[in-house]
Amino acid sequence: MHDIVYELPKGFRCSGSTCGIKESGHPDLSLFVSDVPATAAGVFTKNRVVGAPVTVTRSRVPRGDARAVVINSGNANACTGQEGHQNALTMTKAVADLLQCSAEQVLVCSTGIIGVQLPVDVILSHLPESISALNSDANQFRDAAVSMMTTDTFPKLAMEDCRLPDGQTVRISGAAKGAAMIAPNMATMLSVIMTDVRLTETQAAELLAAAVSQTFNCISVDRHTSTSDTVLLLANGAAVDRPAEEDDLAAIQRALTQVCEKLATDIIRDAEGADHFITVHVNGLETEQAATAIAREIADSPLVKTAVAGADPNWGRIVSAAGYAGVDFEADYVSLLINDTLVYRDGMPVSFDETSLSAELRANREVTITLSIAGGPCSGSSAARFWTSDLTTEYVRLNSDYTT
Amino acid sequence: MHDIVYELPKGFRCSGSTCGIKESGHPDLSLFVSDVPATAAGVFTKNRVVGAPVTVTRSRVPRGDARAVVINSGNANACTGQEGHQNALTMTKAVADLLQCSAEQVLVCSTGIIGVQLPVDVILSHLPESISALNSDANQFRDAAVSMMTTDTFPKLAMEDCRLPDGQTVRISGAAKGAAMIAPNMATMLSVIMTDVRLTETQAAELLAAAVSQTFNCISVDRHTSTSDTVLLLANGAAVDRPAEEDDLAAIQRALTQVCEKLATDIIRDAEGADHFITVHVNGLETEQAATAIAREIADSPLVKTAVAGADPNWGRIVSAAGYAGVDFEADYVSLLINDTLVYRDGMPVSFDETSLSAELRANREVTITLSIAGGPCSGSSAARFWTSDLTTEYVRLNSDYTT
Repeated sequence: MHDIVYELPKGFRCSGSTCGIKESGHPDLSLFVSDVPATAAGVFTKNRVVGAPVTVTRSRVPRGDARAVVINSGNANACTGQEGHQNALTMTKAVADLLQCSAEQVLVCSTGIIGVQLPVDVILSHLPESISALNSDANQFRDAAVSMMTTDTFPKLAMEDCRLPDGQTVRISGAAKGAAMIAPNMATMLSVIMTDVRLTETQAAELLAAAVSQTFNCISVDRHTSTSDTVLLLANGAAVDRPAEEDDLAAIQRALTQVCEKLATDIIRDAEGADHFITVHVNGLETEQAATAIAREIADSPLVKTAVAGADPNWGRIVSAAGYAGVDFEADYVSLLINDTLVYRDGMPVSFDETSLSAELRANREVTITLSIAGGPCSGSSAARFWTSDLTTEYVRLNSDYTT
Repeated sequence: MHDIVYELPKGFRCSGSTCGIKESGHPDLSLFVSDVPATAAGVFTKNRVVGAPVTVTRSRVPRGDARAVVINSGNANACTGQEGHQNALTMTKAVADLLQCSAEQVLVCSTGIIGVQLPVDVILSHLPESISALNSDANQFRDAAVSMMTTDTFPKLAMEDCRLPDGQTVRISGAAKGAAMIAPNMATMLSVIMTDVRLTETQAAELLAAAVSQTFNCISVDRHTSTSDTVLLLANGAAVDRPAEEDDLAAIQRALTQVCEKLATDIIRDAEGADHFITVHVNGLETEQAATAIAREIADSPLVKTAVAGADPNWGRIVSAAGYAGVDFEADYVSLLINDTLVYRDGMPVSFDETSLSAELRANREVTITLSIAGGPCSGSSAARFWTSDLTTEYVRLNSDYTT
């Protein structure tokens, strides 16, 4: 993973450094800057309780003239009231002043401890240095991803080059962080994605929403939607400055979804205390929504997740989790594969070599669960995919280890 | 708890004994018999995948002439196809023949391993002995509750005497089993409740539905609805044979709900690997449904449950779980108590003695979480209560410990 070099699209610069929010002294301030005004779109947490940066950034997108995203880690600036809101505004104003643009052109995210006021002064005094460090090279892109990390054990980066129908090439690059939540912090999921194609606000919003619904919205470590989850897309036209046309959008959508999938699955690969990376496929439903509901219920079941941790090919837990997803289907048409082994067919268990499948689960980090519905009144041709991690004693230990 | 003697209502007899389904040799066959035809109502799992006994029993209630409930543990008779369905029918027919009634007057439940055919012969050959053992005393009631157990560590029994407006007294007694699910078995929740008042089918169904919605439907160990969950009510009129009147119903409802609450909370007290018994109160919502959704989301959050296991007064996890329950509310009006300590008020954390509250959580098995919404557009006067257990490394160990 570390051998791949992730480069930025044209016209973007990044920096990542230590301003001093984290007691550990680890990097905690990231800047993503577009040299020219960029179209910006965002997808935000659906939690009713949101951090101040979500309120501020949500009110500023979509827009056509964004210049920068500033992100601090170590403090989520959530549950911090009016003072927290003011601090988020102050951060964007300070960046805007240094970039000589308006505060509304700057977006902000924060991740880390909640309920504690952001030490905004240490950010302000460090910002000139962050701006000076801005660079278009891969190292600064990586540093920006590292500076977003909280409980993450590795930075999450992705890059796709995308050839448009007219032969021109554009790049989509992104950084993300997030690895479950850990007390008393919340390991929010944050992602910034940049591209050098030109998009309208509507195009950017629609492309991002479609990509997120198949990727970031299809991962779950512990069902816990944080108060700060944010995915931002900036499109600056530095490589292809003509407006994207209908024919371009399919190619861009594919590449953007790929970037989001790489970042989203990296988050699951880095899930706290996880031993297995689980992909759940569900197919044969009337709608994608129904398929997703079943896939999510399987992925969120503590009993399925502990079974995988224990290398137990427990079809009963998987089938019964599907059964309580609130989706109508005929139980007699359900079949189930664990990896490539058929364990359940048409509503009945199938004889299989449990010892061998269990050994396979124990030996491999990757597990695939495929549930198919082959007929009956509510069946159809829609499918969904969901990613999750297993539930280990280490997860519980990490999340219940409390020291005052 | 073992000092209380639980007696049956008039006109009921029970037995519990070992027929030989369980390899352990533990008791595995329970009978609950009414001497006269009784009104019967039931509430069943909403899982799309259900065991054969659920299909059979669900088709037979409500009815006015039920005579018996036969329950085996050690095998759930679920995911067993047509043969399993036939075995469930055979069990009820055999009991009916011995009681000289029709098969339709007998209800059946099974709990234990799934996907394995029920050894129906060992049940049939043991049934005459079970019938001979039927007795109205407290010991056989207790034995019947013990014979329903799977991973339970103690039998769950409850009894309430209820004085009707005309001065007559009726009794409501119940037994239940259930303590999460454990591989490769499913620890279904089953309960049989008996009363010696006379009820119509509609009265029985409505009283039971109302009681269950406040009790059995407000508990969760791991969100996993089993394929066999069943609660049955039998009302035989042996104490008060006149039809229950409007004035009686309020008193009966209160007592029935009390019985269900005792049984439901006993299931949580016996939850696998749990160190804490958690009661979640939510109030200040427009509807009870909204309050229940929030309470359930808090109770089901692995992060809340691990925090309680770690004696961590982590208000952030609780408030953010409330925020993603899919219920509209204004975050600025949320307050939170952990036990009697105010930790969060009007959307902001409150300074409190964390060390002392953590020590309190460590020292006591019972924890109360109270979330209140004091105003805003979607507030109101509705409240809900939910019970759950904490999430410990022992739960994960129990549920991932797999031996082929």
